[in-house]
Amino acid sequence: MRRSNLALVLRHLRDAGSRSRARIAVETGLNRGTVSSLVTELIDRGLVREGDVQRGGSVGRPGQTVELDGRGIGGIGVEINVDYVTAIVLDLTNTVVFEQRVALDVQALTADAVLDAVTDLAVRALADCADKGMTPVGMTLAVPALVDADTGVVAFAPNLHWRRVAVVAGLTERLTERLGRPAFGVRVDNDANLAALGEYAMGGRAGTPDLVYLTGETGVGGGVMIDGRLLRGAEGFSGEIGHMPLNPGGDLCGCGRRGCWETMVGLAALLRMAATPDDPVCDPSLDLEQRLAVLSGRADDGDPRTLEAIALVGAALGLGASILVNVFNPRVLVLGGYFASLGQYLLAPMLSELRARVIAPDACQVDLSTLGFAAASRGGAHVALEAVLDDPTLVAVRHLA
Amino acid sequence: MRRSNLALVLRHLRDAGSRSRARIAVETGLNRGTVSSLVTELIDRGLVREGDVQRGGSVGRPGQTVELDGRGIGGIGVEINVDYVTAIVLDLTNTVVFEQRVALDVQALTADAVLDAVTDLAVRALADCADKGMTPVGMTLAVPALVDADTGVVAFAPNLHWRRVAVVAGLTERLTERLGRPAFGVRVDNDANLAALGEYAMGGRAGTPDLVYLTGETGVGGGVMIDGRLLRGAEGFSGEIGHMPLNPGGDLCGCGRRGCWETMVGLAALLRMAATPDDPVCDPSLDLEQRLAVLSGRADDGDPRTLEAIALVGAALGLGASILVNVFNPRVLVLGGYFASLGQYLLAPMLSELRARVIAPDACQVDLSTLGFAAASRGGAHVALEAVLDDPTLVAVRHLA
Repeated sequence: MRRSNLALVLRHLRDAGSRSRARIAVETGLNRGTVSSLVTELIDRGLVREGDVQRGGSVGRPGQTVELDGRGIGGIGVEINVDYVTAIVLDLTNTVVFEQRVALDVQALTADAVLDAVTDLAVRALADCADKGMTPVGMTLAVPALVDADTGVVAFAPNLHWRRVAVVAGLTERLTERLGRPAFGVRVDNDANLAALGEYAMGGRAGTPDLVYLTGETGVGGGVMIDGRLLRGAEGFSGEIGHMPLNPGGDLCGCGRRGCWETMVGLAALLRMAATPDDPVCDPSLDLEQRLAVLSGRADDGDPRTLEAIALVGAALGLGASILVNVFNPRVLVLGGYFASLGQYLLAPMLSELRARVIAPDACQVDLSTLGFAAASRGGAHVALEAVLDDPTLVAVRHLA
Repeated sequence: MRRSNLALVLRHLRDAGSRSRARIAVETGLNRGTVSSLVTELIDRGLVREGDVQRGGSVGRPGQTVELDGRGIGGIGVEINVDYVTAIVLDLTNTVVFEQRVALDVQALTADAVLDAVTDLAVRALADCADKGMTPVGMTLAVPALVDADTGVVAFAPNLHWRRVAVVAGLTERLTERLGRPAFGVRVDNDANLAALGEYAMGGRAGTPDLVYLTGETGVGGGVMIDGRLLRGAEGFSGEIGHMPLNPGGDLCGCGRRGCWETMVGLAALLRMAATPDDPVCDPSLDLEQRLAVLSGRADDGDPRTLEAIALVGAALGLGASILVNVFNPRVLVLGGYFASLGQYLLAPMLSELRARVIAPDACQVDLSTLGFAAASRGGAHVALEAVLDDPTLVAVRHLA
């Protein structure tokens, strides 16, 4: 009971912001004595701190406010993608305190070698937490894959060429060897699902209840928020939108079929149209954002091949996106990954095709992600932090009152 | 408080079935005296009746059971489709007590003329209620359209050639002229959404929380249940799946675009491939089920043109359905409308294409609707009954105790 009341007050402070104990009591329905005691315990656990003195306001007497602290708490998100691995640490206020991306040609490596690289990165993130005096409370792996979250297994990741890889066990084992058994939970989820959760929690359209997130990388991923909840499907395999058969007899896809949407709008399709194979923008060992910056620069310079490639991808993006908008009728469609990096040029042809194909009046708004390639790892870190919001007693009392 | 407790007991009896007052008390957490009094009131309102005497059982003493009655309560569903209008009356146990379908070439008529025909049918349904001593508690119109449920307006129905038709006002006005102002609520909703609700409430896979419903008529409609709740979208315009652009440069669609899925799997596509325009199976003034029975008979006889047409439609059905299964990862996909009527022949080519294109292992189960063309009107009648399940005091006390 006390545990769930601690969680209630902590979430309320995160969602509603800094306020007085009196106001918390009114808003949560708890009595003032209970709130005072709960807040004291949350302060002792380093999750809440005293804030400013507030005068006036519509509810309760003016008084000392309290606010979410959580500088001492770290949620870790680690993303494995085709061209890179990323690690991010967020504190409890969703502030980024650590971020590192490493270019990695994952398709050319074994799963074990990739997990070694992921472990190196995770160890660096944990060392940074230790340096900053932060307690890690959870780690979430984001993978472009069908994921069995319950068993921590990647069932199928066509673009990584992985089938049945036990990533949670593999990472936990490696971390245990290096640092001792982790005292926090490690889990895995689909990258686009985590990115949608990240957008919903801290993106430019955070809190929009009906939100579709689309990301362009080697593959195309989708994550869907419906009325504020992530669409997961009966077995957790929802949002597989990269393989919509939109181009009969088209190019061969990583999944073995022809004409999938991914073959029209994935990064490989863009690069094939925009550059020759020996062009450095096609080199997966170079940093992806730098490669995209080069492409964007060529577009700025008016390079016809680059502009035409982007225009074709944009139209195909609108074509497929129209299906999702017609099916989900979202309030906003957020474009992430390289769709956001090249959004300045992709958006016009994309919107033109989308608007021509959406049945409902007032097609939904289309936004470029402000989280970029970090959306999935941010979402993962955010999910890791949820453990503490569900049970604040996971964090030890640090200061005896 | 008493009202919500009445609703709690009534819903419990509907969902859990006949049981003793003692068991209801245990299962709802209400005390026995309260349950007795609530049951007495529900009996007085004609919503519950005494059942058998039950011996043994795991909970509570054996005793007199009570069960949902509701023979005196009628929910009315009226469907407007391209080729027909239908009215159905369900009692509170979802039993059909009235059903009538009238062939109608809606595209050839004005909206006013269609509403006149709908009113005739609704009046017949209401007369039947009166004959049976039933109180109508609500009427729901099902329309293949983008619907603004709040204002009762059909925003856009491409296959009816309707834009901004105030159907609820139009029907209410006509009913008022004929019978006096209706004492029950009249509303409108998308037909496929109502059919999905009907399948979820009383179809062959009732209660399956993640269920996608697909119906083949002139258009193709979709309704999606996610975790037991209907997907509506930000503006109520979700589930528009007929216009997925799957056949670039293909046939012209009712929506004005080319190559929509509907042009590949709608009834018109099937008929165009299976028959000449002067063939009676193409005559919209004849009953649709009879026309489909003729086609089915030709398939039984091995008619090559019919079989080839069905095989092509089946493959195209699987192609588009794979998108929905990949996006939603449902537990079950229910095929309704003419997809169910011709399911015996459509299913094999459909499943072959679907299974080749679904990414997740164990593609979801595909079932033929047992509600057929009545799914939407049944769903509408069911929704109309919900008003009483939310507030049993809407029904007057009939017998003084």
